[in-house]
Amino acid sequence: MMNRCMFRTASLRSRGASRIPSDIGIRRRVASIAFNWEDPLAAAELYTEEELAVQDTARQFSQERLLPRVLDAYRNENYDRRILEEMGEIGLLGATINGYGCAGASTVASGLIAKEVERIDSGYRSAMSVQSSLVMTGIDKFGSPEQKDIFLPLLAKGKLLGCFGLTEPNHGSDPGSLETVAKEHPLKNGYYSLSGTKTWITNSPIAELMMVWARLEGTGKIRGFLIERSQCPPGALETPAIKNKTALRASITGMIQMDNCPVPGANMLPDAEGLSGPFTCLSSARLGIAFGTMGALEDCIHRARTYALERKQFKGNPLAKYQLVQKKLADAVTVAAYGTLAATQVARLKDAGKAVPEMISMTKRQNCDMALANARVYDIPSVLRRNIDCVEIFGGNATSDEYHIGRHVANLFVTQTYEGQSDIHTLILGRAITGVQAFV
Amino acid sequence: MMNRCMFRTASLRSRGASRIPSDIGIRRRVASIAFNWEDPLAAAELYTEEELAVQDTARQFSQERLLPRVLDAYRNENYDRRILEEMGEIGLLGATINGYGCAGASTVASGLIAKEVERIDSGYRSAMSVQSSLVMTGIDKFGSPEQKDIFLPLLAKGKLLGCFGLTEPNHGSDPGSLETVAKEHPLKNGYYSLSGTKTWITNSPIAELMMVWARLEGTGKIRGFLIERSQCPPGALETPAIKNKTALRASITGMIQMDNCPVPGANMLPDAEGLSGPFTCLSSARLGIAFGTMGALEDCIHRARTYALERKQFKGNPLAKYQLVQKKLADAVTVAAYGTLAATQVARLKDAGKAVPEMISMTKRQNCDMALANARVYDIPSVLRRNIDCVEIFGGNATSDEYHIGRHVANLFVTQTYEGQSDIHTLILGRAITGVQAFV
Amino acid sequence: MMNRCMFRTASLRSRGASRIPSDIGIRRRVASIAFNWEDPLAAAELYTEEELAVQDTARQFSQERLLPRVLDAYRNENYDRRILEEMGEIGLLGATINGYGCAGASTVASGLIAKEVERIDSGYRSAMSVQSSLVMTGIDKFGSPEQKDIFLPLLAKGKLLGCFGLTEPNHGSDPGSLETVAKEHPLKNGYYSLSGTKTWITNSPIAELMMVWARLEGTGKIRGFLIERSQCPPGALETPAIKNKTALRASITGMIQMDNCPVPGANMLPDAEGLSGPFTCLSSARLGIAFGTMGALEDCIHRARTYALERKQFKGNPLAKYQLVQKKLADAVTVAAYGTLAATQVARLKDAGKAVPEMISMTKRQNCDMALANARVYDIPSVLRRNIDCVEIFGGNATSDEYHIGRHVANLFVTQTYEGQSDIHTLILGRAITGVQAFV
Amino acid sequence: MMNRCMFRTASLRSRGASRIPSDIGIRRRVASIAFNWEDPLAAAELYTEEELAVQDTARQFSQERLLPRVLDAYRNENYDRRILEEMGEIGLLGATINGYGCAGASTVASGLIAKEVERIDSGYRSAMSVQSSLVMTGIDKFGSPEQKDIFLPLLAKGKLLGCFGLTEPNHGSDPGSLETVAKEHPLKNGYYSLSGTKTWITNSPIAELMMVWARLEGTGKIRGFLIERSQCPPGALETPAIKNKTALRASITGMIQMDNCPVPGANMLPDAEGLSGPFTCLSSARLGIAFGTMGALEDCIHRARTYALERKQFKGNPLAKYQLVQKKLADAVTVAAYGTLAATQVARLKDAGKAVPEMISMTKRQNCDMALANARVYDIPSVLRRNIDCVEIFGGNATSDEYHIGRHVANLFVTQTYEGQSDIHTLILGRAITGVQAFV
Repeated sequence: MMNRCMFRTASLRSRGASRIPSDIGIRRRVASIAFNWEDPLAAAELYTEEELAVQDTARQFSQERLLPRVLDAYRNENYDRRILEEMGEIGLLGATINGYGCAGASTVASGLIAKEVERIDSGYRSAMSVQSSLVMTGIDKFGSPEQKDIFLPLLAKGKLLGCFGLTEPNHGSDPGSLETVAKEHPLKNGYYSLSGTKTWITNSPIAELMMVWARLEGTGKIRGFLIERSQCPPGALETPAIKNKTALRASITGMIQMDNCPVPGANMLPDAEGLSGPFTCLSSARLGIAFGTMGALEDCIHRARTYALERKQFKGNPLAKYQLVQKKLADAVTVAAYGTLAATQVARLKDAGKAVPEMISMTKRQNCDMALANARVYDIPSVLRRNIDCVEIFGGNATSDEYHIGRHVANLFVTQTYEGQSDIHTLILGRAITGVQAFV
Repeated sequence: MMNRCMFRTASLRSRGASRIPSDIGIRRRVASIAFNWEDPLAAAELYTEEELAVQDTARQFSQERLLPRVLDAYRNENYDRRILEEMGEIGLLGATINGYGCAGASTVASGLIAKEVERIDSGYRSAMSVQSSLVMTGIDKFGSPEQKDIFLPLLAKGKLLGCFGLTEPNHGSDPGSLETVAKEHPLKNGYYSLSGTKTWITNSPIAELMMVWARLEGTGKIRGFLIERSQCPPGALETPAIKNKTALRASITGMIQMDNCPVPGANMLPDAEGLSGPFTCLSSARLGIAFGTMGALEDCIHRARTYALERKQFKGNPLAKYQLVQKKLADAVTVAAYGTLAATQVARLKDAGKAVPEMISMTKRQNCDMALANARVYDIPSVLRRNIDCVEIFGGNATSDEYHIGRHVANLFVTQTYEGQSDIHTLILGRAITGVQAFV
Repeated sequence: MMNRCMFRTASLRSRGASRIPSDIGIRRRVASIAFNWEDPLAAAELYTEEELAVQDTARQFSQERLLPRVLDAYRNENYDRRILEEMGEIGLLGATINGYGCAGASTVASGLIAKEVERIDSGYRSAMSVQSSLVMTGIDKFGSPEQKDIFLPLLAKGKLLGCFGLTEPNHGSDPGSLETVAKEHPLKNGYYSLSGTKTWITNSPIAELMMVWARLEGTGKIRGFLIERSQCPPGALETPAIKNKTALRASITGMIQMDNCPVPGANMLPDAEGLSGPFTCLSSARLGIAFGTMGALEDCIHRARTYALERKQFKGNPLAKYQLVQKKLADAVTVAAYGTLAATQVARLKDAGKAVPEMISMTKRQNCDMALANARVYDIPSVLRRNIDCVEIFGGNATSDEYHIGRHVANLFVTQTYEGQSDIHTLILGRAITGVQAFV
Repeated sequence: MMNRCMFRTASLRSRGASRIPSDIGIRRRVASIAFNWEDPLAAAELYTEEELAVQDTARQFSQERLLPRVLDAYRNENYDRRILEEMGEIGLLGATINGYGCAGASTVASGLIAKEVERIDSGYRSAMSVQSSLVMTGIDKFGSPEQKDIFLPLLAKGKLLGCFGLTEPNHGSDPGSLETVAKEHPLKNGYYSLSGTKTWITNSPIAELMMVWARLEGTGKIRGFLIERSQCPPGALETPAIKNKTALRASITGMIQMDNCPVPGANMLPDAEGLSGPFTCLSSARLGIAFGTMGALEDCIHRARTYALERKQFKGNPLAKYQLVQKKLADAVTVAAYGTLAATQVARLKDAGKAVPEMISMTKRQNCDMALANARVYDIPSVLRRNIDCVEIFGGNATSDEYHIGRHVANLFVTQTYEGQSDIHTLILGRAITGVQAFV
């Protein structure tokens, strides 16, 4: 496989001269055993050499290409679409797919990619997840051979940018009330005509290929359609952006408005009927979130630790010497270690055909909740003084987006709630544990 | 007192035709007793008619004048300085001061003003606190009769905008290392010359009067100086803004850079020496935060409750019917009720001369921590469906700043950490409880 | 009022020579203002002299008469029934009732009694609550003049010991399924015949007077009956004890088994029909729990603080010097202060006729939850050493019941769950906040 | 290996007719994939067939032999010493040791034994840990060949009962202040004479072999000694029990008082000098706690789930249908799954020679903290009614020790604090993360 080689090369390279600064890199498999705060329970021992190579590649890419862009992107709600192309060049997109120029890597490897990208920003990981887990997985699992041949190679290279349209403005998520409808086109033979509105769609304003879920007139069944923006007549498709977001500002979000939008019959996904199709895609994305949030949390830990070590107080002791600071670090590091192990276990089970959706619900929910709760690791006083109050605090500094922390926190608030808000996963788990459903 | 009358009039007015929409107003002192979720433990019973009138005035002002401005201000980091003038017109500034055109209201009334303003935005409350609690309180308590006569009336009307410069970029908060220095001016007789840098100063880029704390050459004692921007020669005073904040964006923050800035001797505060002066001001501001954060939390509750009631799911039940949603509401409402009672008690004690700083530490710390923890009341699923996952969630909607929630959360993260980060207050309380100091 | 005088005398006495050790006493109303860790937000300022006198009496009694008994009682599940008699002698029983030898004190005073008794043990407070809030309040509110004249004076003196029978073994708490039935006695004219089983009844094995709630045959309405043990024929009434409890072992718990038990018609409560009667009693008891748990928590704080100050580590520093220890103390002290203020507010509102049951739900729920969460204040390491692990810990010592801590914790686990488990109060509050009931 | 065979046999047997009731057994490796709430992240996939067989054996033994004894033992603080003998018979003692009649099983297998035993009671696991991890590990790692030959086979069979004496009444855990001293015996040639007191020693009142750590006169170094009770002259050795414990009552705890107690020189451990010896033993025991507490938590989950499913409310719905109940179950199940994975990872690393003590600190701390926090899974209302309060609650039932829950909770409070209280492990991790020690 080309991409497997590519990863291996990338890895070698990243271990060589052009390596990213050592304070970012994870020290692995050292001869003498020592505690590694960046991987405290030695999750790396569970990864293959290839998976570690993929992680190295993704980390190097993220630190070199994404980190320099993120502040401007977040400030201006501006996603640079070339990012997906660059990701495609080194094989990060649709990494678990076999063939079509995809890497054919393990689910674990794919999770590690998500972790490295989200170490920079949850929005960047979201944009990638949409392309990889929602659109590409959807086509790979439910598409026709022609659809795969046409779209997957372009999507894999980031030449074609996809989005995933399921959610609707009102009660849209309820299958009984999904309102977007597809009917036979009254004028164009062999075409469907789609009408309806989707909202909160990551990438929609810049996407060229939209996987849209609509109710098929006649059968009433939900089916997936691939809308190519370039093929749509004027007025049939609008994708306005939703601006002024308070989080995930480095990814772009919008609506999909279809007004008798013609879609060729060949663009309907043949192998998905009902909601099991879109839910398979979402489940795949959620496992990426379970990995990704651990990356964001680790970045918060990394920055808080550095700050606590560099910042001296008047006796010359670093802030890291304070018990209350150490407790926050110990808590957060523990959470990151536990969450990484759990996500790895589920990914490994998935590759072995032994994963069930409730496992993904569990890790998505727990990792998002815990990442958010422990992102407060940064909440450390900058100066602790004897007998008097503290005036200047890291909190103050953290307000500046150059500390990257406030951004992670805002993002994590949303990752906790999207793709299955935490309460929903609670009830999914509750049902699985008791056999009784309490969704009411 | 003019302002007392003003409040009473305002109150009458606010109970009349031009009243703010009833779904915002607190129902008070109804004849038949019923549970009032907006004041569940009947804190209003502890307030005088005058205090309730002040609250009504502040609420009406905030809802009518601040709410329409806040989104734009937050998006663009743009504070409209006319706000302070408008606040001054109705007596909200320096409300506890007697004379000088100030309202002479109780500390409780002042706390209720903070609560109503922060119900809109913590940044708006911050900007007001700087003017009222830091600058005006500082002059009232430590200023000369002339300083009071000159500055207080203008500050009370918002004609003069103040800021408070204590924090320095490095170790500035430590009295042994505060580096801004004031020495006799080498050229101008009767003047001091100030040099040094202050940072994270709310209002500084637009302030006309700066209360700056500096070490007096010779004695080495810390003294307060009133710098009038209009009197400074070019190059002596710079106040660059700090941009790209991740929170408190509706207030403006900056630095104060003084380079041999001349200040008349008459502008030194005569009655403050050492850090007890600035700490008295900060303590006053902190009690305002204890009240204010309860206002922000109540707004989160209000919006989450409205959303949970309006949003129907497929059986037609509102989201409010879900136990997991009710639990978040019950938790948050309880926290707001408890925090309001505690802040009220401390304010009442302060007016009776029976408050000690540790009481303010306790309520500032607890109310900030709890407000932040419970702002997650908004984290409710928009649709709960049987047997399948939720796709669309309030979390998604909450990302839009028009839901106001993400903004509150971001702000509360910072209120928790500024003016004495939570850990610091922990150690202040720990010392008071045990007699042993653990600041190390 | 005799009892009012008694309290005042007791108070004077308690301030005199025979006063309890000063390290237990609360320093109140000192001339110079200082932070008082035992009353950090100066709740005492909200109490009248009489209420403070009642508290002093109850505290002195509890420390002198209950503390020496509690270890043996808890170890052997043995409640000394003379305790209620002793409480009666100094006016602690039915303290809010006017007349009948009761103190006619305020609801606040009654709450302070509960706090002082539960400072020793939740079981002791439970036994007292049953007598005062359930049985005596029930008779005072719903009884006939004759019932009041006969029973209240004896109950007030502790000469007669009461219990309250509502809960049934199965689904008993549901009004549609309460199974104990009262019908006209087939043989004894003017008598009812009661049959059914009540369980988890505090005091039942030793009670002489049982207030039992049963469904009246014919109307189907729930009515209250006063069963006098001495009047029951053999076999008609059994009250076996429930042994081997894991908490509340200092109070005695049992069942009430009625087999055609004859009860004179004059012993039916005339003014209670349906569940509003028993719920009024329970509501009263719950407010006592809100106060009482704060007493138990304060005792945990007191003991943990003493331990942390006395226990030295190898450099000679007390454990109290550790930040992690101070945090636990600061958290717990804050919770006790907030909870006491809230309970006081509700009690004051109740006396003013302005309290609603949801207020009691809120304070019962929050104070129980928070007391339990913060009882862990005791969880402090006894020795912190450099570079190596700790072996000996207070946790170990705390295992011994002579440290009193494990007992408080076990009790608080149960107070949180009885008389309205926390989740139930959540849903009561949720309904009050949203207007939507989610009990399902 | 005999014991390996034994395990395999036991496993086969346990899968056969005499199998424990199926509602307790873990369903493993089923053909079709389904979510297993008892092993939600499929940790069993990480175990070898042999390890699963060991777990089955330990589970069967625990359910059949320990469960019937535990209530009486806990009520009366009575540990049946035959338990260790019975454990020895089936190879549960010192299971990781090779030879001497020990099973030579993996550390993972040993952890699974701890989990199964603690599923019954933490005290039973403690008594076993002392024998296996402290005494037997100590001899295996630091003993002479003769010591191993003499003591290990007897210990492995439970014929000899051991205890481990390190902690002293005062500052004993500080190496600079460990006060027990060993000097050359003044009368008996080749003997040491030990004097000093150890406290909080599990098993000491019934132990026949005591591993005691004392400071060697002359060198001042800490050394380990094996005291055989049968060889001690009258008055030289006393081991009074500590009674009236509030937790861990199913294990016996006491002191070791040595008054010139003679110990043969051959009974000094040759290969341990300083504290690294005892700490190696403690580290081994701690990993057992990380596994064991997950067993106790799983038992709480199992019982709470059963109760929630069996208990119907008036509409006939089980309690399990309530969202608030499902949330507690989902939280607890998640915590048990994550904690089991983490402990397994550390055990696997230990067998690979790649574990460091900080990993054990992390899992011991996190699993104990989380088990305790989530043992509240049992806190579920028994009846939820419309419009009215709940009176009867599981909390009430849980007070009866026959529900086993209160006992687990009390035990977990102590497991959290012994063998390194949680705060200590916080600081160990903090030091490992930052490189700065904050023990002060």
